[in-house]
Amino acid sequence: MVSKNTKEALALHKRLKGKIIVTGKIRNLKPIDIKLIYTPGVAAVCEEIYHHPKKKYDYTSKGNNVAIVTDGTRILGLGNIGPYAALPVMEGKSVLYREFGGISAFPVCLNETKKELIISTIKAIEPAFGAINLEDIESPKVLEISDELERSLSIPVFHDDRHGTAVVALAALFNSLKLVKKRLDSVKVIVAGAGSAGYGIAKLFSSAGCKNIIVVDSDGAIYYGRTKNMNKYKRNLGKITNPKREKGDLSNVLRNADVFIGVSGKKNLLSPKIIKIMKKDPIIFALTNPDPEVEPKIAKTSGAKIVATGSYLYPNKVNNALVFPHLMRVILDKKIQKISSALLIETAKAIANTLTEKELHVDNILPDMYDKRIQANISNAISKIKT
Amino acid sequence: MVSKNTKEALALHKRLKGKIIVTGKIRNLKPIDIKLIYTPGVAAVCEEIYHHPKKKYDYTSKGNNVAIVTDGTRILGLGNIGPYAALPVMEGKSVLYREFGGISAFPVCLNETKKELIISTIKAIEPAFGAINLEDIESPKVLEISDELERSLSIPVFHDDRHGTAVVALAALFNSLKLVKKRLDSVKVIVAGAGSAGYGIAKLFSSAGCKNIIVVDSDGAIYYGRTKNMNKYKRNLGKITNPKREKGDLSNVLRNADVFIGVSGKKNLLSPKIIKIMKKDPIIFALTNPDPEVEPKIAKTSGAKIVATGSYLYPNKVNNALVFPHLMRVILDKKIQKISSALLIETAKAIANTLTEKELHVDNILPDMYDKRIQANISNAISKIKT
Repeated sequence: MVSKNTKEALALHKRLKGKIIVTGKIRNLKPIDIKLIYTPGVAAVCEEIYHHPKKKYDYTSKGNNVAIVTDGTRILGLGNIGPYAALPVMEGKSVLYREFGGISAFPVCLNETKKELIISTIKAIEPAFGAINLEDIESPKVLEISDELERSLSIPVFHDDRHGTAVVALAALFNSLKLVKKRLDSVKVIVAGAGSAGYGIAKLFSSAGCKNIIVVDSDGAIYYGRTKNMNKYKRNLGKITNPKREKGDLSNVLRNADVFIGVSGKKNLLSPKIIKIMKKDPIIFALTNPDPEVEPKIAKTSGAKIVATGSYLYPNKVNNALVFPHLMRVILDKKIQKISSALLIETAKAIANTLTEKELHVDNILPDMYDKRIQANISNAISKIKT
Repeated sequence: MVSKNTKEALALHKRLKGKIIVTGKIRNLKPIDIKLIYTPGVAAVCEEIYHHPKKKYDYTSKGNNVAIVTDGTRILGLGNIGPYAALPVMEGKSVLYREFGGISAFPVCLNETKKELIISTIKAIEPAFGAINLEDIESPKVLEISDELERSLSIPVFHDDRHGTAVVALAALFNSLKLVKKRLDSVKVIVAGAGSAGYGIAKLFSSAGCKNIIVVDSDGAIYYGRTKNMNKYKRNLGKITNPKREKGDLSNVLRNADVFIGVSGKKNLLSPKIIKIMKKDPIIFALTNPDPEVEPKIAKTSGAKIVATGSYLYPNKVNNALVFPHLMRVILDKKIQKISSALLIETAKAIANTLTEKELHVDNILPDMYDKRIQANISNAISKIKT
């Protein structure tokens, strides 16, 4: 099935020669249109914005434009394949932004991997955009970039790998816990991977009330005081997670865990054997793309109660595509400036609660991305946050 | 009329809330489409480009994307109004690029006016684009930026104020000279304005065989050896123009001139009186927007034989909109790397020769931008250039 998809995907992309276009809202221009949208008419619009800067949102596309920015250093599970090979992913995101959010998203693929230059470039291109979407940039560099941009830009900086993945995972967990009748504040959650997604998940789950999270990277469990292979974000994780300072690799810490969340980039990381050491009714989200940490069938036969992946090939898609177009629509409409934990948690609740009790079951833990209720629910939920 | 257009332009822009969108080539996505254009299918496309970099043109939109880059320092004739107030012009250009060239052009409005940072930003964003269009950046900074980018980018750098304006002015001059029966190599041409447009016109006209060009700036005629208010581009003009080293202001050098070309940014620069000191059958291109150097009616009653402006409000529009969508289409299709003088001269000839002898008259010196013959003519003409 993957190989069939591969051939079809290549053929489709070749036929399309790129998946996106930039086009005018008015077409088949008459000479009078040109006088108004171009010279001389446009000069009056320029002057109006010059004298009343806030009107840029009324007279231009800025408020509906999103820059999808990557340097190509961490594309899907493929790694550092550079800005050109990254382009098909960014165009794909743009298509989804338009389809599900009515948003104009343009790929900004950077020929530059230095942190300072990425930051200065994004600052420089800010004016035409209503928001920035950071995408598939290696960690921890991207976390530092995101922190710096949040401080200096006057538009929101959405970091999809961190924020989007955390929201969809939290939404999936909310609903999964309903099914297995466990509480967020009493489950043990293992997160495999300490990149942007792992960091975002651990931070958000912690903010949402989860008290026993352990993040595992290639050097095993992250705990307060670990010295090997650390950075300031992992040190932060050491403080807010792993309260018992458990050590060792995945097969150690997974003992008696209720939830496994894989954002490791490692195919087949999870063996059937170690699933069996988890607590009753294990919840497994193997979210690495294109190949999950464990094949869903294998996870199920090894005792997992609920299994989800990030891929569209299996049931229970826990993919940030469920989040970014809908949430960004609300962010742009409400002119939200900062992506706060409260905003993300309310979004996760809104997505989870979109499914009625009747609709919710072990092979349907999240609404479909086509579900028209999602956006309205997020919008309502976010309206209630005090800002 | 201008004031009516002003109101209409503001109303139209407010209603549209921006003139452009980014959208997918496929819409109404089915789940299978998402599997192919996004994850997991897209991974195969990324890997294909990673292993065969040239295929980026087959599998992505790069080859049809143009960045319209400005820092807002010299917008139309309005001056330094900044990147936000510049946006309506860039969006207008984008609409024209789509309508007349089938091109996806996205505004890159820079929150940054330092030369080095403009250069580094454009270098950084190169991967998603097939060409750069520099727009409305102050001179001589933009000339230095353009020179540096030409050296370092692997995609063409089209500088519309320089290249586009020069081509359309040369095309207009070719046809005007046919009407007044004068030869390019024997006319005296005065160019008012030594910014990007003036520089581009003087350089291109010189390359095309015009032997007596004088460029005039706020300090009068530029000549070899002038010391006041010079820069390396004006020094270059001193070498290739003004063979008799004429000095003084416009009213001095315009004596016995055959052609006046205004790209000065100065409304009403040209008085009826000084038009009268020109040679028989004066040709006046008053190209500053939104307000030309002289009202066409006034120029005509003062003796001008042929009058053109850059505006859509009068006959004889000598506006680079006649050039950039058509020429860029050809540049992208033929994957041309550098914008050479030969390319620009052939383009000007192709545009001029689009009009048949029967169609050409003093109030119709250039084809309409809707003219379907233009693009094919440019394409044919450029095919003949040795590269």
